[in-house]
Amino acid sequence: MLINCSTYQEGAKLNDIPISAISDFVSRPDCFVWVALRDASDAELAEMQAEFGLHELAVEDASHGHQRPKIEEYGESLFAVMHLVELDGEELNVGEVNVFVGKNYVLSVRNRSRHGFLGVRERCEREPELLRHGSGFVLYALLDAVVDRYFPVIDALESELERVEEQIFAKGAARSNIERLYELKRKVTTLKHAVAPLMEAAGKLTSGRIHHLCAETQTYFRDVVDHLYRINGSVDAIRDTISTAIQVNLSLVTIEENEVNKRLAAWAGIFAAATAFAGIWGMNFTHMPELQWEYGYPAALAVIASTCGFLYYRFKRAGWL
Amino acid sequence: MLINCSTYQEGAKLNDIPISAISDFVSRPDCFVWVALRDASDAELAEMQAEFGLHELAVEDASHGHQRPKIEEYGESLFAVMHLVELDGEELNVGEVNVFVGKNYVLSVRNRSRHGFLGVRERCEREPELLRHGSGFVLYALLDAVVDRYFPVIDALESELERVEEQIFAKGAARSNIERLYELKRKVTTLKHAVAPLMEAAGKLTSGRIHHLCAETQTYFRDVVDHLYRINGSVDAIRDTISTAIQVNLSLVTIEENEVNKRLAAWAGIFAAATAFAGIWGMNFTHMPELQWEYGYPAALAVIASTCGFLYYRFKRAGWL
Amino acid sequence: MLINCSTYQEGAKLNDIPISAISDFVSRPDCFVWVALRDASDAELAEMQAEFGLHELAVEDASHGHQRPKIEEYGESLFAVMHLVELDGEELNVGEVNVFVGKNYVLSVRNRSRHGFLGVRERCEREPELLRHGSGFVLYALLDAVVDRYFPVIDALESELERVEEQIFAKGAARSNIERLYELKRKVTTLKHAVAPLMEAAGKLTSGRIHHLCAETQTYFRDVVDHLYRINGSVDAIRDTISTAIQVNLSLVTIEENEVNKRLAAWAGIFAAATAFAGIWGMNFTHMPELQWEYGYPAALAVIASTCGFLYYRFKRAGWL
Amino acid sequence: MLINCSTYQEGAKLNDIPISAISDFVSRPDCFVWVALRDASDAELAEMQAEFGLHELAVEDASHGHQRPKIEEYGESLFAVMHLVELDGEELNVGEVNVFVGKNYVLSVRNRSRHGFLGVRERCEREPELLRHGSGFVLYALLDAVVDRYFPVIDALESELERVEEQIFAKGAARSNIERLYELKRKVTTLKHAVAPLMEAAGKLTSGRIHHLCAETQTYFRDVVDHLYRINGSVDAIRDTISTAIQVNLSLVTIEENEVNKRLAAWAGIFAAATAFAGIWGMNFTHMPELQWEYGYPAALAVIASTCGFLYYRFKRAGWL
Amino acid sequence: MLINCSTYQEGAKLNDIPISAISDFVSRPDCFVWVALRDASDAELAEMQAEFGLHELAVEDASHGHQRPKIEEYGESLFAVMHLVELDGEELNVGEVNVFVGKNYVLSVRNRSRHGFLGVRERCEREPELLRHGSGFVLYALLDAVVDRYFPVIDALESELERVEEQIFAKGAARSNIERLYELKRKVTTLKHAVAPLMEAAGKLTSGRIHHLCAETQTYFRDVVDHLYRINGSVDAIRDTISTAIQVNLSLVTIEENEVNKRLAAWAGIFAAATAFAGIWGMNFTHMPELQWEYGYPAALAVIASTCGFLYYRFKRAGWL
Ligand SMILES: [Mg+2]
Ligand SMILES: [Mg+2]
Ligand SMILES: [Mg+2]
Ligand SMILES: [Mg+2]
Ligand SMILES: [Mg+2]
Ligand SMILES: [Mg+2]
Ligand SMILES: [Mg+2]
Ligand SMILES: [Mg+2]
Ligand SMILES: [Mg+2]
Ligand SMILES: [Mg+2]
Ligand SMILES: [Mg+2]
Ligand SMILES: [Mg+2]
Ligand SMILES: [Mg+2]
Ligand SMILES: [Mg+2]
Ligand SMILES: [Mg+2]
Ligand SMILES: [Mg+2]
Ligand SMILES: [Mg+2]
Ligand SMILES: [Mg+2]
Ligand SMILES: [Mg+2]
Ligand SMILES: [Mg+2]
Ligand SMILES: [Mg+2]
Ligand SMILES: [Mg+2]
Ligand SMILES: [Mg+2]
Ligand SMILES: [Mg+2]
Ligand SMILES: [Mg+2]
Ligand SMILES: [Mg+2]
Ligand SMILES: [Mg+2]
Ligand SMILES: [Mg+2]
Ligand SMILES: [Mg+2]
Ligand SMILES: [Mg+2]
Ligand SMILES: [Mg+2]
Repeated sequence: MLINCSTYQEGAKLNDIPISAISDFVSRPDCFVWVALRDASDAELAEMQAEFGLHELAVEDASHGHQRPKIEEYGESLFAVMHLVELDGEELNVGEVNVFVGKNYVLSVRNRSRHGFLGVRERCEREPELLRHGSGFVLYALLDAVVDRYFPVIDALESELERVEEQIFAKGAARSNIERLYELKRKVTTLKHAVAPLMEAAGKLTSGRIHHLCAETQTYFRDVVDHLYRINGSVDAIRDTISTAIQVNLSLVTIEENEVNKRLAAWAGIFAAATAFAGIWGMNFTHMPELQWEYGYPAALAVIASTCGFLYYRFKRAGWL
Repeated sequence: MLINCSTYQEGAKLNDIPISAISDFVSRPDCFVWVALRDASDAELAEMQAEFGLHELAVEDASHGHQRPKIEEYGESLFAVMHLVELDGEELNVGEVNVFVGKNYVLSVRNRSRHGFLGVRERCEREPELLRHGSGFVLYALLDAVVDRYFPVIDALESELERVEEQIFAKGAARSNIERLYELKRKVTTLKHAVAPLMEAAGKLTSGRIHHLCAETQTYFRDVVDHLYRINGSVDAIRDTISTAIQVNLSLVTIEENEVNKRLAAWAGIFAAATAFAGIWGMNFTHMPELQWEYGYPAALAVIASTCGFLYYRFKRAGWL
Repeated sequence: MLINCSTYQEGAKLNDIPISAISDFVSRPDCFVWVALRDASDAELAEMQAEFGLHELAVEDASHGHQRPKIEEYGESLFAVMHLVELDGEELNVGEVNVFVGKNYVLSVRNRSRHGFLGVRERCEREPELLRHGSGFVLYALLDAVVDRYFPVIDALESELERVEEQIFAKGAARSNIERLYELKRKVTTLKHAVAPLMEAAGKLTSGRIHHLCAETQTYFRDVVDHLYRINGSVDAIRDTISTAIQVNLSLVTIEENEVNKRLAAWAGIFAAATAFAGIWGMNFTHMPELQWEYGYPAALAVIASTCGFLYYRFKRAGWL
Repeated sequence: MLINCSTYQEGAKLNDIPISAISDFVSRPDCFVWVALRDASDAELAEMQAEFGLHELAVEDASHGHQRPKIEEYGESLFAVMHLVELDGEELNVGEVNVFVGKNYVLSVRNRSRHGFLGVRERCEREPELLRHGSGFVLYALLDAVVDRYFPVIDALESELERVEEQIFAKGAARSNIERLYELKRKVTTLKHAVAPLMEAAGKLTSGRIHHLCAETQTYFRDVVDHLYRINGSVDAIRDTISTAIQVNLSLVTIEENEVNKRLAAWAGIFAAATAFAGIWGMNFTHMPELQWEYGYPAALAVIASTCGFLYYRFKRAGWL
Repeated sequence: MLINCSTYQEGAKLNDIPISAISDFVSRPDCFVWVALRDASDAELAEMQAEFGLHELAVEDASHGHQRPKIEEYGESLFAVMHLVELDGEELNVGEVNVFVGKNYVLSVRNRSRHGFLGVRERCEREPELLRHGSGFVLYALLDAVVDRYFPVIDALESELERVEEQIFAKGAARSNIERLYELKRKVTTLKHAVAPLMEAAGKLTSGRIHHLCAETQTYFRDVVDHLYRINGSVDAIRDTISTAIQVNLSLVTIEENEVNKRLAAWAGIFAAATAFAGIWGMNFTHMPELQWEYGYPAALAVIASTCGFLYYRFKRAGWL
């Protein structure tokens, strides 16, 4: 589905044009066409491939989807794939945006995501002196928008981790902690697979042989790479904390089990003593002198009570109760 | 066993020829012979070695089999080893294909695998403008076919992992989870040892000193490398999730054990109290006033019942029941 | 809030000047202005951006805060971000200092931290022959001051780790050890995220293409990098020890549980034997010869006592008691 | 002890010579002497050092023994140390071979190993067209022989691992599994310390600045490096599987413990119920109506049996029995 | 404290001189002064700084102490820091030696260690043809001596590890094993922090841009680097084995716990059966036919004995006893 298709020159918007008019503007030297598609059909992609002379392999990736984030050079043009990670209630929704960038065109194809890029277009049209750098700046603007949308996701994951961390040492919370940690690890891995490869790819744009499209906007691309480093650092920190939290959770469960065992052993000991005594005086030997003794029963009770009291005191001191 | 042996020129198929005729075509400048063998005997390999002047070490590797995936340069020619990983019901069947590539020949030797490469030959013959790049393109086509067959395997492993993940928090599923996770880890390791070395080897074809055979098809080789990166990323993700799942499984078993212990301790406490009381009133002291008391027995039962009730309530509140 | 704003020439302080006078001095060839701000408002930053021609992206980072430590080149000038880590009782307080450095100016903006940098200014003014190297030396002095303040933090973390290590093998300390280890891991991670990225960034200043501002003070920058390596080494050592300590803690809890189980099993065995015997002689069979035997009761007690004694001896020898 | 000492020229063996005659042949331009020693004494090494002008540090390493595998350049000559790993029943016997290689000599000193290198000498003498490359080819032949002897060791370790893997899920096999895994890990580490450093050292021979002695046999050295990579890959795979197996073993033991606890809890519950009832009807209250009731006893038995039956059914359904 | 101060020329010792005479000899072209200090005071360091023109930062490191091992270039001179690790009964004593090396001087400052370096001076004076290489060779000799003293420490740690490994599978040794492993890990980490950074630093002396002081003694420096690699390899091996041993220890404790639980469950079952039977025949129902039966009691005993026997046999077969 076509979102819009407009032309730009000297850092300013010229006009909105129909798909058919693209070829007239694409050939103008100092002008580029910016087309935005959503969930493009193969037919739409084929039409774009013809208009902009896109490489078949890049078009194939765009149509297959589920690509690994990357920025590839196809001769004079660039083909970038970025994951769109959006908070969707408790879940993370992962979409994809493919961006084909040439001297005279920018084609962005957005799949499986709700947030559009209109904001990006407005931002570019608000900065003519930067838009003057051409389609390369539009690639930066798209990249910057995608990366900036990772921050609220990482913040949400960090606060969820903090909520779990507050529960780590709470008794009886072990099972829910483990489930939440496992769930959190799944989401962090999703974000990791959006950020890490893109960090590498974008990093290559700002070091070594710079592609001509990005030559004039190096400082801006480097800023995005720095933001990717920041998010990647936070992602690594969360993963590291999660794995420690899982280890600590296991230790706490084992400690709790130990405490339960000690109290079981203590009380079992006390009752067993009482039952043993009762059992002994419940034997039917005819000659059991104390049984006839007037104060036999209270004495027995005293013996039982004092043994239990003594055992209770000993277990209390040993920390078993 | 010979699968077929045909000659190609200017991106088009010339004809099928017998092994004996190979020498006539191999010497023609703009023509190459494509021979496909299956589970080749040493004699067949020796014959090919003579026809194409293959290096003894490469032939030795092909005859030994069980090689590590690699792409090696033998002067002007290339020798590639790739693992064929096929889903065989619950198991993974690992075969091997050795590809000897020279200016005027491509020899592919397929061992221990059921899927042939006829599809690859058809694809090449369907793209004359690419086949024009010669034997290098055939190497790409074989590599692309082998790598594309990894995707259904990784998808199968990912869905098996998802099925296990759904069971992770199910009670009493610990033992079957562990067995399935261990089984899954074994298969993922097999795939890892097919993908990772090939990713490195193919990566070297697209960076640094490019071998002349692959010079004209760099973009295509780079596309295969990107697919290998994608699979390798998914493999790493599965391995990471499996190791977390094993840790979480251990925690859950320990948590369950803790819950069992608590209930054992609680009920043991309740019964022990009842038995202790019963034991005391089962003692044979002659002077046990309450024993003669008309309501002694119901009172005793009341005492026992209330103690057990009180203990039950306390254990319920402490989360032990 | 403005802390101070003074000018320097030929390694000596000229005078304190109001913000408005900055432009007169900034243009003088052999002179630089050093402005220090605290928790700068966006307006103050905008004013500074105008005076010193700061890049919008650097100013954006400074105003957002929560940046990853870094040292970035903006053409002729440098923009550095450093975390200020201060001991705040039991907690770590993390502030931030942004330093904009150009040929003729140094602007330091300190956020969320209590310790000022006046000491740094005094140190510079005390070393005219070094201050002669200009704003580059001031950057070194700020960097050196920030890094030196990491040492007391790492020392505090190391002594806290030593205190926990003394408790690792103490009985019943498992729960408090785990909590303290987890707390320590959180703080060490905070310090790691202040040190590691800065180590990389500062390292780049002393190798490969040296920025002209730091050319004359390489030995001094390298000294700071060495200190960062030292702290990073200690941080890695603490993290490694913590993870081993958590593993050892789990083992000790499991060993303790084992010891408790053995004692529970031993005593349960002893009491159960006594109760079983008592139970048998408590049976109401009319023909139980030993019950009528004059020494029946003492014999029974003897049998019970000797069985318990024997069991006690056996458990003692097996290490269960 | 001297094994043999012969001279070679133009790829063919000239003759066997006594040590004293070495100096005559060593100076001939197109000829090299190949001396093989076993468990050489310091005197023998000193003699060789004089004959071939060996560097004191290399001789010191050879005499000390227990070196790390390496290939070092001493000006025009090479000094290689390789571990000889041989299966010795259940154990691994680790010997060492030091090879001094110069333009006109090869000295191999074999310590603490039973397999000689006569086979290598025969292989060289059988390939005159390769032996023509001189002492460099002999170094390759020795390296290739040493590395090929690692394959049976890695195969043995892999089949031992497979045998343990078959037992992993067998009940009651935990203790023997752990002992066998630990034993296996020790052996794999021994092999790792023979292979990994040699892989690095040999790798350097085939990349970057090639030493003149190995210039003409690069393809052969690269083949050995590939074999080392293969073994190293298998070693890493075994280590990874062992660490997973240890984790899984711990989980299985904990699962088994859980199953035992559940059955203990279930049966304890059933018996405790029976004993409690019996205890209550064993009390000596005079007014216990049911005791006089003609069917009191069978009713009691019925109550006890049905309670136990009910509990058994409930535990069966909860999976505790 | 001054240990000694002598001058050397053309590989031979000239004479011992007082500190005051240093300046006369330091300026002579082909001569160098070798000063050795122990636990130098700041005054002594300042005096040396004046005599040899030492950099303030190097002097600052030497006076602070507790540096990370390193070898730094200060223009024409080198400043090296090395940890002295000595076995001190059960503990490791870590001292430090700072070595300032210039064209005409070597200053070694030894802190907190008992072993002096006189042996090193003798070794140098015994090898005039090597000492002829000047102060660079003295740096090598000091480095070689420090590194050689690591070998007895690593041997001691390896034999302690072997002693613990023999106990790993011994019953009841879990707690002492864990304590010894933890203690061993602490010592190995100390050695790691002496060796790893020095290995890196010394490695840089033998690759890339060689410092002029070390140019003529490359082979000797490379020998020390190889020794450092060897120790570092052994250190890594010990750390890896320790972490596996800790894992195996935890498994063994859990296995032992399982065995105890099984025996507890088995005996509890047997006694509980006996007690239940006794309890039933201890009930006071008037109509309990078997109680009046002449052989009631022996029959009861028979029933109890056979049930216990049967349970014992079943538990024996199930491996619980
Ligand atoms: Mg693709
Ligand atoms: Mg990429
Ligand atoms: Mg990455
Ligand atoms: Mg930035
Ligand atoms: Mg950056
Ligand atoms: Mg970071
Ligand atoms: Mg990081
Ligand atoms: Mg990572
Ligand atoms: Mg081979
Ligand atoms: Mg590789
Ligand atoms: Mg691709
Ligand atoms: Mg790529
Ligand atoms: Mg990936
Ligand atoms: Mg990856
Ligand atoms: Mg930014
Ligand atoms: Mg950085
Ligand atoms: Mg320094
Ligand atoms: Mg580092
Ligand atoms: Mg370090
Ligand atoms: Mg380190
Ligand atoms: Mg040596
Ligand atoms: Mg090496
Ligand atoms: Mg090879
Ligand atoms: Mg490998
Ligand atoms: Mg590998
Ligand atoms: Mg310093
Ligand atoms: Mg260093
Ligand atoms: Mg050496
Ligand atoms: Mg070396
Ligand atoms: Mg090593
Ligand atoms: Mg190693």
